[in-house]
Amino acid sequence: MEAAVATSRDARGRAASRPRGRGEKSPPDSRKVYMDYNATTPLEPEVIQAMTEAMREAWGNPSSPYPAGRKAKDIIDTARENVAKMICGKPQDIIFTSGGTESNNLVIHSVVKHFHQTHPSKGSLAELCSPLDRAMPHLITCTVEHDSIRLPLEHLVEERVAAVTFVPVSKVNGQVEVEDILAAVCPATCLVTIMLANNETGVIMPISEISQRIKALNQKRVASGLPVVLLHTDAAQALGKRHVDVEDLGVDFLTIVGHKFYGPRIGALYVRGLGELTPLYPMLFGGGQERNFRPGTENTPMIAGLGKAAELVTRNCEAYEAHMRDVRDYLEEQLEAEFGKQRIHLNSQFPGTERLPNTCNFSIRGPQLQESCLRGTVLSGSCCSVPWDERGRALGTREGASTLAGEEDTRAAGAPPARSASASRRVSPGRVVLARCRTLLASVGAACHSDHADRPSPVLLSCGIPFDVARNALRLSVGRSTTRAEVDLIVQDLKQAVAQLEGQA
Amino acid sequence: MEAAVATSRDARGRAASRPRGRGEKSPPDSRKVYMDYNATTPLEPEVIQAMTEAMREAWGNPSSPYPAGRKAKDIIDTARENVAKMICGKPQDIIFTSGGTESNNLVIHSVVKHFHQTHPSKGSLAELCSPLDRAMPHLITCTVEHDSIRLPLEHLVEERVAAVTFVPVSKVNGQVEVEDILAAVCPATCLVTIMLANNETGVIMPISEISQRIKALNQKRVASGLPVVLLHTDAAQALGKRHVDVEDLGVDFLTIVGHKFYGPRIGALYVRGLGELTPLYPMLFGGGQERNFRPGTENTPMIAGLGKAAELVTRNCEAYEAHMRDVRDYLEEQLEAEFGKQRIHLNSQFPGTERLPNTCNFSIRGPQLQESCLRGTVLSGSCCSVPWDERGRALGTREGASTLAGEEDTRAAGAPPARSASASRRVSPGRVVLARCRTLLASVGAACHSDHADRPSPVLLSCGIPFDVARNALRLSVGRSTTRAEVDLIVQDLKQAVAQLEGQA
Repeated sequence: MEAAVATSRDARGRAASRPRGRGEKSPPDSRKVYMDYNATTPLEPEVIQAMTEAMREAWGNPSSPYPAGRKAKDIIDTARENVAKMICGKPQDIIFTSGGTESNNLVIHSVVKHFHQTHPSKGSLAELCSPLDRAMPHLITCTVEHDSIRLPLEHLVEERVAAVTFVPVSKVNGQVEVEDILAAVCPATCLVTIMLANNETGVIMPISEISQRIKALNQKRVASGLPVVLLHTDAAQALGKRHVDVEDLGVDFLTIVGHKFYGPRIGALYVRGLGELTPLYPMLFGGGQERNFRPGTENTPMIAGLGKAAELVTRNCEAYEAHMRDVRDYLEEQLEAEFGKQRIHLNSQFPGTERLPNTCNFSIRGPQLQESCLRGTVLSGSCCSVPWDERGRALGTREGASTLAGEEDTRAAGAPPARSASASRRVSPGRVVLARCRTLLASVGAACHSDHADRPSPVLLSCGIPFDVARNALRLSVGRSTTRAEVDLIVQDLKQAVAQLEGQA
Repeated sequence: MEAAVATSRDARGRAASRPRGRGEKSPPDSRKVYMDYNATTPLEPEVIQAMTEAMREAWGNPSSPYPAGRKAKDIIDTARENVAKMICGKPQDIIFTSGGTESNNLVIHSVVKHFHQTHPSKGSLAELCSPLDRAMPHLITCTVEHDSIRLPLEHLVEERVAAVTFVPVSKVNGQVEVEDILAAVCPATCLVTIMLANNETGVIMPISEISQRIKALNQKRVASGLPVVLLHTDAAQALGKRHVDVEDLGVDFLTIVGHKFYGPRIGALYVRGLGELTPLYPMLFGGGQERNFRPGTENTPMIAGLGKAAELVTRNCEAYEAHMRDVRDYLEEQLEAEFGKQRIHLNSQFPGTERLPNTCNFSIRGPQLQESCLRGTVLSGSCCSVPWDERGRALGTREGASTLAGEEDTRAAGAPPARSASASRRVSPGRVVLARCRTLLASVGAACHSDHADRPSPVLLSCGIPFDVARNALRLSVGRSTTRAEVDLIVQDLKQAVAQLEGQA
């Protein structure tokens, strides 16, 4: 196992590709192979260095006019340039935020506010003849978005301040269909928000095509006095894995999330012609930082790290992409070779659909595996996926999540009726398999749903994956330094886990 | 000068007390003495270490169930305990935010939302007989709050979703008067938000007294079916400088800002009995982190740093306070000794009023100084406070600030009518003196107002400092490792700067 790991392409990167703290002296059987790079990525050593330097040398308040402040301001300016360059945008169109959740919420808040500012509901004489009188803003999204898009939109609907259309994705190709988006547009539509790449399947959404159609439509809408439809894409999963160009995409807003491309846990928002072409209404009010669009003393070290991570992406993205694609394709080949083609269902391979180079979502099929897991196997693996009660049943870990999850179930295409409390504590076969693995660290879907122990991924169900296949799903996502040797290790690890479980059936 | 600096109490801390990057080998005359610790503080070496370790070893997604994620989660839990301990609160009452601006905005957002949820305006049959029918929520604050309180409140007023009373502070003692707060309470009042210590004068506000009075009042209000008045304090400037205890203070919300106590640029919010006793309505929606009160993948390294900074405060606050008070008091003595008592006006010394141990706000008086500055002196100092145009006039640096500043002027007690555009480019004497200093790094007020070149601080005007004295004001704030020797240096520096300017008059 040591020898296999030693074939890694980049010792420094390799070390970063696994949880640290176990050190080189750990016994071989405790070595883990991290394949959950869509959940988060380690920080590149150069990013850590940039952040540490900024912590030591640029701690001044960027609003202070003396050198300590000016140095911090210069670092922030350089980072802004690097982030802009990564997406082929302009520095003045970038604002820094606390992360992707804030960026996504900010876009949604902003377009709703803009609609109300420019189309005040009743009471305004000027608007009485408008077809929008008393209309609520209308937003369009799809059914496989991250919670930081879905939940703020659902909240607007609950509050009765906006109408939202959730366009289903195609069960044939996993993508949202351009025609479906266009068909959902109504006079009050002010935003279309569609992710650039899905976090669970890696499917790339047709943003450029949507943008072209919306642009044509907007010309007619402006002539009719209707609000312009703005286009936002959450590029959290795409950045660092494929070339992202705001001009090619034609988007008005784009969400940037540092920790998905080996950067820190802050984010940024691209806004085309910030404040001039595209409106942005702040959610926070304070000391005027980020031109009042996002006040709060700037987090210089984190911003420095984000800039460095962006610089690395600009410089190396093609190489990262080619490497990840090679390893991911090898992983899929090996899974099929070792388990047999008929046992592996590649949930994210849709014919003719582009997907991220690093994501492999698959299910291991087989009645024996299903049976052993449905019998509530007691688990003892070192990477057990969920906390367990005394009978080996999974326990929820996060307060408040159940209500939201309930909503999720009712919306998930193909989901069965809500199960009893007792049944819902069973664990999906995907989780049971992962918990039996001794080497592999991966997930069954989005990390922030890791306590929904028994539910198959609503994303997979939306994409047409049958319920029983989706329950077995595993999401493996490889990184910049994942090796073919590591793939060999974890495929054997999976085989052993499955064999053990089937032996109990 | 080297000898003087060598008397510093703590070589490691001393180095951190000045902007780095100048190194020990810099010639003595380029040595700077940082006395702007109310603007921001350097990170303690232990804080940097905690953050760096977390960056390297706890980069996993805290929502991931395998060891890398669990390690991150453990670090976050420990940090939450340490932050709670610093303010004598419970860990479950702490949520992490991106900073003080977010914490303050979140409190205001939350109470307004809660008011509307529990007292829906008209249309609700149950409410028709209530005295609050159609009432807007009412909030009370004072006239010397930070922009991250003042501006969100002004925004609510502009949007006509809340009414706000800005209670003036006493011109005798710089404090808000408890009776004035109580007198402002009306049936729809749902929040009183008063800072714990003012950032420019250091004056401590009577939060405990306000709390006791509000508690008594709330008993009667509950009996009458009126909303409870909640109490928030922004403790940004107090933490790390004096003991802060949420039980003594009796507050429902308390804002925590890492970078004011040698921690990182994130923050936290204390909420008494979070979600049970005290409501909190999230501003962001997403992946369920922080029990859905503040979603977004947790910023583990920053949180680790905040926890470490809090731990240091808990352990050493008394010593920090005693040291800062000693040095600050020495500073005030030396200023009076060197310039003469009649020339120094100590703007933050109000008889009988407690103030922060580290803050010295003073003005150097004298007609010659005023005259030289009003003549638009051309500056060439190395720590010039503001960018200059060719004629030596200060230029604004931040877009969008002018409108806000305009509002400020109209509110500021004792301010003259708005000046012409040309006149407003003159620089206040305080700034001119600072720009002449070769050693001292300080400010004339809040860092986030550093581009308001000519306006005297609205905070000082509110506290009754005469306009011409306020225009000369300097805010010096000392830190954990500031020394008496450094005080000697900067007092001489100030003397030289003033002498030069007066020579030109």
